[in-house]
Amino acid sequence: MSSLSPTERTTLGRKRHRAASERAALHAVLDEALICHLGVVRDGVPLVLPTGYGRDGDILYLHGSTGAASLRAATRGTDVCVTVTLLDGIVYCRSVNNHSVNYRSAVILGQARLVTDPDEKMHGLHVLTDHLSPGSWEHARAVNKKEFAAVSVIALDLTEASVKLRAEGPDDEPEDVAANAAWAGVLPVRTVFGEPEPSADLPPGWTVPEHVAARVTRTAAAAR
Amino acid sequence: MSSLSPTERTTLGRKRHRAASERAALHAVLDEALICHLGVVRDGVPLVLPTGYGRDGDILYLHGSTGAASLRAATRGTDVCVTVTLLDGIVYCRSVNNHSVNYRSAVILGQARLVTDPDEKMHGLHVLTDHLSPGSWEHARAVNKKEFAAVSVIALDLTEASVKLRAEGPDDEPEDVAANAAWAGVLPVRTVFGEPEPSADLPPGWTVPEHVAARVTRTAAAAR
Repeated sequence: MSSLSPTERTTLGRKRHRAASERAALHAVLDEALICHLGVVRDGVPLVLPTGYGRDGDILYLHGSTGAASLRAATRGTDVCVTVTLLDGIVYCRSVNNHSVNYRSAVILGQARLVTDPDEKMHGLHVLTDHLSPGSWEHARAVNKKEFAAVSVIALDLTEASVKLRAEGPDDEPEDVAANAAWAGVLPVRTVFGEPEPSADLPPGWTVPEHVAARVTRTAAAAR
Repeated sequence: MSSLSPTERTTLGRKRHRAASERAALHAVLDEALICHLGVVRDGVPLVLPTGYGRDGDILYLHGSTGAASLRAATRGTDVCVTVTLLDGIVYCRSVNNHSVNYRSAVILGQARLVTDPDEKMHGLHVLTDHLSPGSWEHARAVNKKEFAAVSVIALDLTEASVKLRAEGPDDEPEDVAANAAWAGVLPVRTVFGEPEPSADLPPGWTVPEHVAARVTRTAAAAR
C-alpha cells in the first residue's frame, strides 16, 4: 500500500489527524462515490460543477461535450481541483458548537490532460461507464464515430491528493457530558438505490437486467 | 415567485432547457441538500472543499474555524463558488453514449462577506444548525463566548445563481429504441437516514429525542 505524496497544498492545515495518508483510502473514496465536483478557474473566478468520473489505477477520467466550457477551462494548462465527498452521518452533540458530520472526502489537484489518443479516449469512456453503470459497456450499444467525436475525455493523475475523514461519535466537553442535559449520537446517512423504473418506451418482455437489479438496495436494513 | 438574475457567468452555455429559472427551485435544492462544495481560488489554483451551510431567505451562511484557510481565502474580496448537488438517479440508455444521471444542482457565485456583527453571526450559526440538525439549537447547550470567538461565519448573497436539473427517462435515438437490443430505464438514487446511534458515553435513561427520531427514513418504501 503506497502512501499519497502530499504537497504543501494538499497537506491539511488543520486537524491533520483526520488525514488518511494511504493511497488505498483515496481509491476507496473514489470507488464508492458516484459523482465528483470539478473546480476550475475561469476569468479568475472559481467554477465548481458536478460531473461523473471513473478511476483506472492512479488516473481519474472525466468527460463532457466538446463544447463544455468547464472542460475547455480544465485543459488550459492551469490546475484543476476534483473533490469527491461521501456524507456518512450527522453528529449530534450536547453542545450546538460541537455538532459535526461524519464524512470521507478526497481532494485531487493537478493539471488535467486532454486525452487525444483514440485508444486511451475509448478506454477512458469505458472506465467512466464502468463507474457510473457497471455492466452497461457490455450490455448497451457501443459508442459510434459521431458520438466519439462529440465527446471530450480528460485525465487527471492522482499524484497530488489528500483524503480527510471523520468517522467517530460525538466529541463533547467533559462538563457537557457530566451535565447530561442533551442527547448525543450519530444519525447515519446512506445513499441507496431504489427500484429500477423501466423507460416508458421499453417494449414488453424485458425484465430488469442483472447488472442493474444487483445494485438495488433491497431493504431498509441493508441500507444501514 | 421571483426569477433568478442570471449573468453571463451563470447562464448555462449548453442545454439551456435544463435551467430552472425560478428562485423557488434554487431554494428547494438548497433546502433539501445537506452539504455544499465551496470553491475558492488560492494562489491561482481552485480549491474545492465540502462544508455545511444554511439558508435564510436569499442569504447563504457558511462557517468554519477562524483558522481555516478556505474561509480566509473566501473573504479576500474575490469571488467564490458554492455548488450544491442532489443526485436523483442513474439513467440507463440503449446506447452507452446516452447514459446520464438525473440530478438537481445549484451554482452560486459572488463575493462572500465575513459576518462581523455579533447578532448576525449568532443568527448565522442558528441558521446553519437548523439546516444540519433541526431542533438542536433548542435542545443542545448554547454556543458560549469562547466557541463564538473561535468560529467564523461568512455570508453569500443568492443574487447570482443558476439551477440545472435533469429529471426524465432515457433519451435514446429512435433507431436504438426500434432495435430494442438493450434495457433502458432509471435507477433511483436516494439519501436516507439510518437508525440513530446513541453516543457511547450517553448515560442510561435517554430515548432518541423527537427532533432526531423524526428524520429517520423508516422503511425502504419511504426511501423511494
